[in-house]
Amino acid sequence: MRILVTGAGGFLGRGLIARIADALPQARRIVLTDRVVEGLGGAGVDTIAGDLSDPAFRRALLDPGFDLVFHLASIPGSLAEREQGLGLSVNLLAPIGLAEDVAARQPGARFVFASSIAVYGNLGEDTVTGATACQPELTYGAHKRMTEVLLSDMTRRGALSAISLRFPGLVARPATESGHGSAFMSQIFHQIAAGTPYACPIAADSTCWWMSRPAAVETLLWAARLADPGTTVVQPPVLHADLTSVAAATARITGQAARIDWGNDPVLRQIFGAMPPLDASPALALGFRADADLDALARAALSGDP
Amino acid sequence: MRILVTGAGGFLGRGLIARIADALPQARRIVLTDRVVEGLGGAGVDTIAGDLSDPAFRRALLDPGFDLVFHLASIPGSLAEREQGLGLSVNLLAPIGLAEDVAARQPGARFVFASSIAVYGNLGEDTVTGATACQPELTYGAHKRMTEVLLSDMTRRGALSAISLRFPGLVARPATESGHGSAFMSQIFHQIAAGTPYACPIAADSTCWWMSRPAAVETLLWAARLADPGTTVVQPPVLHADLTSVAAATARITGQAARIDWGNDPVLRQIFGAMPPLDASPALALGFRADADLDALARAALSGDP
Repeated sequence: MRILVTGAGGFLGRGLIARIADALPQARRIVLTDRVVEGLGGAGVDTIAGDLSDPAFRRALLDPGFDLVFHLASIPGSLAEREQGLGLSVNLLAPIGLAEDVAARQPGARFVFASSIAVYGNLGEDTVTGATACQPELTYGAHKRMTEVLLSDMTRRGALSAISLRFPGLVARPATESGHGSAFMSQIFHQIAAGTPYACPIAADSTCWWMSRPAAVETLLWAARLADPGTTVVQPPVLHADLTSVAAATARITGQAARIDWGNDPVLRQIFGAMPPLDASPALALGFRADADLDALARAALSGDP
Repeated sequence: MRILVTGAGGFLGRGLIARIADALPQARRIVLTDRVVEGLGGAGVDTIAGDLSDPAFRRALLDPGFDLVFHLASIPGSLAEREQGLGLSVNLLAPIGLAEDVAARQPGARFVFASSIAVYGNLGEDTVTGATACQPELTYGAHKRMTEVLLSDMTRRGALSAISLRFPGLVARPATESGHGSAFMSQIFHQIAAGTPYACPIAADSTCWWMSRPAAVETLLWAARLADPGTTVVQPPVLHADLTSVAAATARITGQAARIDWGNDPVLRQIFGAMPPLDASPALALGFRADADLDALARAALSGDP
């Protein structure tokens, strides 16, 4: 089995490549790609640097084809909103070109796509189900949704066997990372663990959807292994909890006090902090799992692995 | 006002360009484009032949920008299903490139997009409303849906003022046209009018959504004039009727007998002949109108205009 990971140098990518060789021992070849690949390689793993929106690069990269592709490469939502040309290239044209080229070399290849809950747009108070409409409110979410539609169609006609996974903001991203509007969701873990005061931009009763990077990595690997998913879009299970509860869990497992000054940013709250409950039963029936509970989430978020 | 019509040589395009100068007298410049433009021009109208998927052609075409674009160019669904590379280029990459380039030259331009009811995929028996999910079952419909999502996002951020119109199969296309799975919807008019027997591939009780080309042209023009549509996707009103009723209306207005041998093609019936009712109240509230009744539909379908 030949495996390709795009966006391998990103937060999720680094988590995946630390697990991939163990988790998929049938791999005969593993190729990691990103714009910069220094430090990503290892025993039995090739790295190739390049730009996925460049057809010539894709041609070279995909020779002679892959059985399994994890397409993780994208730029974050707030950056894509500011830099529309870059967002179009990275978040839309590159996935279209990659999917078509992967299918041309290896029809029916499994294509695991890191989509996003940004596809939904503003959710009301109703529980999110498979019937929830997608009305993205950010260009990032629109491009993710377009890619989902493309991959569903390619799967229908046998060109690929694609699974799009709608990830929430993953925690805990490095304290230094920028470009994510959801940065506060990671900072809350880091700042409490460090014992430092933190000015959180939204209110304590804001409810988010939570998933640790280790849980996201297991979600990717599960999607890669599913023999017959019977669907092309999966909303993975998440933890649905308010910031107070997450702060309390983090304080509990770190032995620190949560010293948080809660804010009131209406835009961030609308996008990330007003999430309704999720009915994840379709994904649970397929075997996907969330973090076990908030303490497990906080531990995984702070594990620093890889 | 500068106006661009793409796909001007197509069935809908020819209908539009016969009306456009009268209907939009504020036009200062009208440009028609298609791969072949011979015979399309006229007084005060420029024609430019080219391939919209070619960025250099788009650059030349769009100089110095347009206030209003009718994007009608596409290849039909059954052809796109067979020729995937051509479909990708014409039905997805060209609209993406055109929309982005139009917006770059003239931010906020009105962009009227000929979408399709193929975006829905297999509909059940429930009345179609604004909440009906889109699960396209043809690559053509997937590409139309992706373009709708793109245009909605571009409108949200002010790059364009786009309206996507979900057209059913329009009638009556020329008897010689091929590539449309819905060809039977046009043949039924032509064959009855000609007094010839017709082997219709699906059953007499099949229900379709009907719209004449003149009604579709008025729909395009209405979308162009709407000051503040308040939505980016419109399902225009249609007539919902079975083939028996349409054949009877055609016989009535032509004075011919309907001599039809009804078939039983399950695929064509599923795609075109099992349409549920439509709640078109949002479009009606915006002023869009269907053909008045089946007799008016049959007359318009057979009018041969333009």
